[in-house]
Amino acid sequence: MNKKANPLHHMLNPDSVAFVGANNQPTTMGTVQMLQTLNFGYKGRIYPVHPKEKSVLGIKAYPSIRDIPDHVDLAVITVPARTVPNIFKDCGSKGVHYAVVTSGGFREVGEQGRELEMQILELARRYQIRFIGPNCLGILNPHHRINLTMFSYKQPPGTMGLASQSGTYVTQVIKYLEKRGVGYSRALSIGNKADIDLVDCLEYLGEDDETRAIALYIEGLKRPRMFLETAMKVSKVKPLVALYVGGTEAGARSSASHTGAICAPAKLYSDMFRQAGIIEARSVEDLYQWTWALANQPVPRSNRIAILTHSGGPATSIADACNKNGLHVPRFSPRTLDAIKPLVPPTASIDNPVDLTFSTEPSLMAQILPPIILEDPNIDALIIHGLMVTSWMSDIKEAAGDLIENIPIEKISKMVEGPIRELSRLPHKYNKPLICSSFLDSDMEVITRKLHQFRIPAYDGPEKAVTAMSAMVRYREILG
Amino acid sequence: MNKKANPLHHMLNPDSVAFVGANNQPTTMGTVQMLQTLNFGYKGRIYPVHPKEKSVLGIKAYPSIRDIPDHVDLAVITVPARTVPNIFKDCGSKGVHYAVVTSGGFREVGEQGRELEMQILELARRYQIRFIGPNCLGILNPHHRINLTMFSYKQPPGTMGLASQSGTYVTQVIKYLEKRGVGYSRALSIGNKADIDLVDCLEYLGEDDETRAIALYIEGLKRPRMFLETAMKVSKVKPLVALYVGGTEAGARSSASHTGAICAPAKLYSDMFRQAGIIEARSVEDLYQWTWALANQPVPRSNRIAILTHSGGPATSIADACNKNGLHVPRFSPRTLDAIKPLVPPTASIDNPVDLTFSTEPSLMAQILPPIILEDPNIDALIIHGLMVTSWMSDIKEAAGDLIENIPIEKISKMVEGPIRELSRLPHKYNKPLICSSFLDSDMEVITRKLHQFRIPAYDGPEKAVTAMSAMVRYREILG
Repeated sequence: MNKKANPLHHMLNPDSVAFVGANNQPTTMGTVQMLQTLNFGYKGRIYPVHPKEKSVLGIKAYPSIRDIPDHVDLAVITVPARTVPNIFKDCGSKGVHYAVVTSGGFREVGEQGRELEMQILELARRYQIRFIGPNCLGILNPHHRINLTMFSYKQPPGTMGLASQSGTYVTQVIKYLEKRGVGYSRALSIGNKADIDLVDCLEYLGEDDETRAIALYIEGLKRPRMFLETAMKVSKVKPLVALYVGGTEAGARSSASHTGAICAPAKLYSDMFRQAGIIEARSVEDLYQWTWALANQPVPRSNRIAILTHSGGPATSIADACNKNGLHVPRFSPRTLDAIKPLVPPTASIDNPVDLTFSTEPSLMAQILPPIILEDPNIDALIIHGLMVTSWMSDIKEAAGDLIENIPIEKISKMVEGPIRELSRLPHKYNKPLICSSFLDSDMEVITRKLHQFRIPAYDGPEKAVTAMSAMVRYREILG
Repeated sequence: MNKKANPLHHMLNPDSVAFVGANNQPTTMGTVQMLQTLNFGYKGRIYPVHPKEKSVLGIKAYPSIRDIPDHVDLAVITVPARTVPNIFKDCGSKGVHYAVVTSGGFREVGEQGRELEMQILELARRYQIRFIGPNCLGILNPHHRINLTMFSYKQPPGTMGLASQSGTYVTQVIKYLEKRGVGYSRALSIGNKADIDLVDCLEYLGEDDETRAIALYIEGLKRPRMFLETAMKVSKVKPLVALYVGGTEAGARSSASHTGAICAPAKLYSDMFRQAGIIEARSVEDLYQWTWALANQPVPRSNRIAILTHSGGPATSIADACNKNGLHVPRFSPRTLDAIKPLVPPTASIDNPVDLTFSTEPSLMAQILPPIILEDPNIDALIIHGLMVTSWMSDIKEAAGDLIENIPIEKISKMVEGPIRELSRLPHKYNKPLICSSFLDSDMEVITRKLHQFRIPAYDGPEKAVTAMSAMVRYREILG
């Protein structure tokens, strides 16, 4: 199939964009969208449309989209709902075939809005316009340096494709995700999905080469049968994770006033997800974190997990959480035990979990033991808690004063880069995933950032590493 | 009952402490423990004990605990396991009746260690010494400025009492908890619990006035019947939250080599917790966060939750998560609806959840709506997502340059202090708990820190607010 056939391809890779609704007041939504795109280093042409202003944010403005002298690939529409039909007519006259409609005040506000939504849908069909929204919060493609949301995106392009019925879960989480090392390949806030819906998104993200795994936030589906058929195909190619929130009385009621969604019971969706090969998340955090793990680590062969840490508490709670989540924590092969034993302190436990107890040698955990463990034929995946913890060193520095040497954060960051780069290659070499966890404190943030940089998922709780690993094992079952 | 009867009272409030195992090398465990206590501003007397050194960290040292000229309330013992029996004999001669034994190498390492543990227990009985450990990571009482762990504690004293079989979950999480605004009243790493066990901790924390709720990390119990009886009493007075990790094959195996615990199936513990009035946590994060909410917010009358936010996604996922966790999201009374309607934008949904949609008026969410909602007789508790979000303002500042005014973080911090102080009084005024959530980014951290300061729990995920609220409702059921 020709990838360019999908309208989302054109929306996410435009050569020219008209911003209908931007002005010179930088706190209005349409203006912020244009500012973010400018600030992101977008290379295409930008045409503000404003009835009165001669220029908007220093760029020549046009009274109507029809007055723009060049071809316009995409219109971004952020004006009062009642004026959207006229903008659609202008787009039609001008031959603009793609639009992002962030304006609210449609289906989600009741009968009158519903009529307005039908009206723009009809105009879109008449003028062959494909559009996302209305009532969405924009779309984002870091590879094309285009960001039509209200929030800046500062990370390198990532590998997680996101389609969401909530704009907040695309836009207001950008910094939250940045801190957690989770990057977008593409992100789509679909709003009321009057035209482009989750099926289109799924098709597009399924075909998109930059997207390695797909996250879906769902309040309700317009075409459940097509969704199921599409998901069944896509899930064989790349992992799908979904959170459905419309399946309870309160969820359905809230959803109706949010995006006008019509909801079905949670059980129906769970069954459908299972049939479709979709991994079901239970929270927004899971949705992002599981998808991120699946987007960056190899799929495990089966469910036999090794645990490596320096603390008995995390060792035990990870082991326990593994069993509670359907994962095995097998004993190592004799060969592995023989290899580990001479390397670790006498107080260490080694027969999975490996608990190094008090050890000040960071290379043991980051470089020496992981390849030995991943070599073991009884082991399919590895969880490390508290990798290279140097935090207590800098913590006691304050108490100890001149008694110990101070190691600045920059130096630590440099010191850990080599070992973590090396570690990051192992999962791909052995085809066995690696997930880390730790209680992030000041120093650990350096290490966590490095882990993120090298695409090793690193979570702020031991059980989170386990549930993400469990999602990965689930994907193995889906692949069969 | 006389509170001072509990040995933990003496251990946590000593007037004089001997550090057996501290030296002048600031990276050894015993030395760090002494450093942390010095650095914490401990007001009592400190006596390092060292066979050779004349002074340790600038304080006069003694070759044996017997040589200390004054009375010693507590001995902190961090020496090789085989030498601990002699230290106990010295304590006996000197009349030291309380000890914290951080030395490892006992029950957790096998038969020989088990014998050594029996030996120190016997000596303790002979010399009337009560001790915590061995193989623990210390205890902490911020009210008495004593910190016998390896990590510094920089927060004000808190209201959560913690007893844990894992030292990591007491010590390595201190910064993690600090960032999340969770403070200790007392924290106890109990290690192998040869003498002082979880029953003693529960009795002590139950009686302790500074402790408003109790968190327990359990790998196995020594006296399950006494534990049950004690918990039944304590849970009527203050909330108990427990995480049990010894109930699976892998959890039990790991636990045996960690603290030598003997474990029982998870189901048995769950039943016992239910009977005891203990709220069962499913992760370490839950353990801390639920306890913190319970320690700082009033207990709800029942399970009818109001939701206030500016985003449809969080509104819907909180509503859905409420229903999934046994909480109701009822419609407001007509009077409440009449009061809200004129105050909010026309795009807002108001009949619970209240979704303000795009609103730049922070006082609406922080000051104006909460008392109206909490006044409603249909409502027992409130969850607010995204309180006073100003983050997009500072985010677009970067993109907008001189077009908008820059508001420095310090100014924001000052601006929000008054409203958040006011907000923090409402739960106690109406006797209805308040929990917040948001996707923390740079600005929100200011707001989150203020919320923490005024003891309003604030989490980095909407579903976390719901599960914490559900734990609070569970405590209402326990109280009956």
